[in-house]
Amino acid sequence: MKLVTYRGVGARPTLGALVDGERAILDLQAAQTATSGGGHPALENMQALIEGGEAAWDLARSLVAAPAAGACTPVTGPGQLLAPLPRPVQVRDCLCFKDHLLGAAWHRARNEGRTELTAADEARVALIMGRPYWYNCNRMSIIGPDETVHWPSYSNVIDYELEMAVVLGKGGVNIPAASARSHIFGYSIYNDFSARDVQTDEMATGIGPSRSKHFDGGNGLGPCIVTADEFDPYNARTVVRVNGDVVAENNTGTITIDFETLISFVSTDQTLFPGEILCSGTVGGGCGLERGEFLQRGDTIELEIEGIGRLRHTIAMA
Amino acid sequence: MKLVTYRGVGARPTLGALVDGERAILDLQAAQTATSGGGHPALENMQALIEGGEAAWDLARSLVAAPAAGACTPVTGPGQLLAPLPRPVQVRDCLCFKDHLLGAAWHRARNEGRTELTAADEARVALIMGRPYWYNCNRMSIIGPDETVHWPSYSNVIDYELEMAVVLGKGGVNIPAASARSHIFGYSIYNDFSARDVQTDEMATGIGPSRSKHFDGGNGLGPCIVTADEFDPYNARTVVRVNGDVVAENNTGTITIDFETLISFVSTDQTLFPGEILCSGTVGGGCGLERGEFLQRGDTIELEIEGIGRLRHTIAMA
Repeated sequence: MKLVTYRGVGARPTLGALVDGERAILDLQAAQTATSGGGHPALENMQALIEGGEAAWDLARSLVAAPAAGACTPVTGPGQLLAPLPRPVQVRDCLCFKDHLLGAAWHRARNEGRTELTAADEARVALIMGRPYWYNCNRMSIIGPDETVHWPSYSNVIDYELEMAVVLGKGGVNIPAASARSHIFGYSIYNDFSARDVQTDEMATGIGPSRSKHFDGGNGLGPCIVTADEFDPYNARTVVRVNGDVVAENNTGTITIDFETLISFVSTDQTLFPGEILCSGTVGGGCGLERGEFLQRGDTIELEIEGIGRLRHTIAMA
Repeated sequence: MKLVTYRGVGARPTLGALVDGERAILDLQAAQTATSGGGHPALENMQALIEGGEAAWDLARSLVAAPAAGACTPVTGPGQLLAPLPRPVQVRDCLCFKDHLLGAAWHRARNEGRTELTAADEARVALIMGRPYWYNCNRMSIIGPDETVHWPSYSNVIDYELEMAVVLGKGGVNIPAASARSHIFGYSIYNDFSARDVQTDEMATGIGPSRSKHFDGGNGLGPCIVTADEFDPYNARTVVRVNGDVVAENNTGTITIDFETLISFVSTDQTLFPGEILCSGTVGGGCGLERGEFLQRGDTIELEIEGIGRLRHTIAMA
């Protein structure tokens, strides 16, 4: 299933599923009511569905398998979809792709007129790949597809980052890697917008990114959550388009730290909850930093992950 | 008012206020029902009260001013109080005390056999004091007073940190420093437990603390929230006791970056919400790191801020 949160009746945030070759959205609660004569609490919103567990997911699947015509609405375009999980329980951003770290190190090298990486560059990449690291994002600054990204007043250099978002379906603590996959509800696309000029000082303190990543609208999520049974996170083509032009392509199979390892590590002595999001970190080449190209006011940035969809945003003019 | 969340009727988390010289807890909803014949939605829990705004706070004040006898329960001791805000909207940990940074730098110097700070030490302190920095905590790992702190399996060095927690009452974006004080609902004590051995690598990556701070039970909050009208955050004595012995004393007046500056800075281009918590960072001397003394299994650690109370925890034996 491709699950969405969209503006339904009265523009109310509504849980839906893409049906009819992604040309229509099925209002899951309306479909349930049409089918059984009454609604179901697990179909009230995405978080409720996630917390509903396997039984609720099976219910949604059965509704999608035979979509009630009266509960369908056509896909219209920008403004219809909201972030699939507008206020996630928590969002962690991790660093799973070595190629991105190397790309960022090469950017610094070029800026400093070097033609090779230093021992310190190599050591830093090795350190970060030595175990999963992450920082907690601002869960209150999530925006959905096609929203305009505010340009923070304190920055002159705004960048995007193409990431996979793993949405947990089952919580737990000390989850073994061997069973971690069964804790994943689904996947989405995450655009971790970043004020690069501010980020430099923040990383230098050791305390990690804060206002460089947390500004209003700085966390794009969507367009849907594809359920785990329908998506292979380790073999999906990725495409970045700026103003319609392809500027980068890659494949999620280049991941260095897989999600099983990540979930097992993060959950060690730390309870994870249904609806928490773990982001993969930037796919290699999936940000402007690696090429020294940054977003401009008015730009449209589109991140595609094959099998999930396209997540598009416009950068504000002011 | 000193507001608490406690195990009320049927052990249900209940919003209360300390009354009768802190010898009793007033169940605010029960008091409202006794007074007016019906409950009030803003008295359902601490977050609802905060979101209720001035009118709700005035209502609570009027109930506390004449506590209905039938709605009072005696203060009994450990196990009665929960964290005043068990699941805060968000928790940021900031670094407002220069003395703590200097203390930590001196600890490293001593460990390396130095008798003075290096230029790099001084530069790092100056960088961090140059503007507010912060990281987002694990809001799902908050524990209340007298709970036992789990010892994470991956660490050998567990420390505490004595911090003030600022609870926002009013949200907003681009809040001027001049009016920031009016956005504060109240203050609590925060114990930012830290796995120091793990933290070192995490800071070295630049990405900031993650599992060193986020483990289950790693964020102690309480015992109450004292409302802003009854507490001066810049003149409160602080005391740390380990197993009953005073090991550190200080005063919150040693703060370097005040909360007005902090709120104004954090809210720049970033909307803050009622119930969010901003922690002050460690008060100078308010952690074991600065003295090279760490917690042991079975220890009791008590953080006191005069005017708020004492926040006590025990470190698990296993």
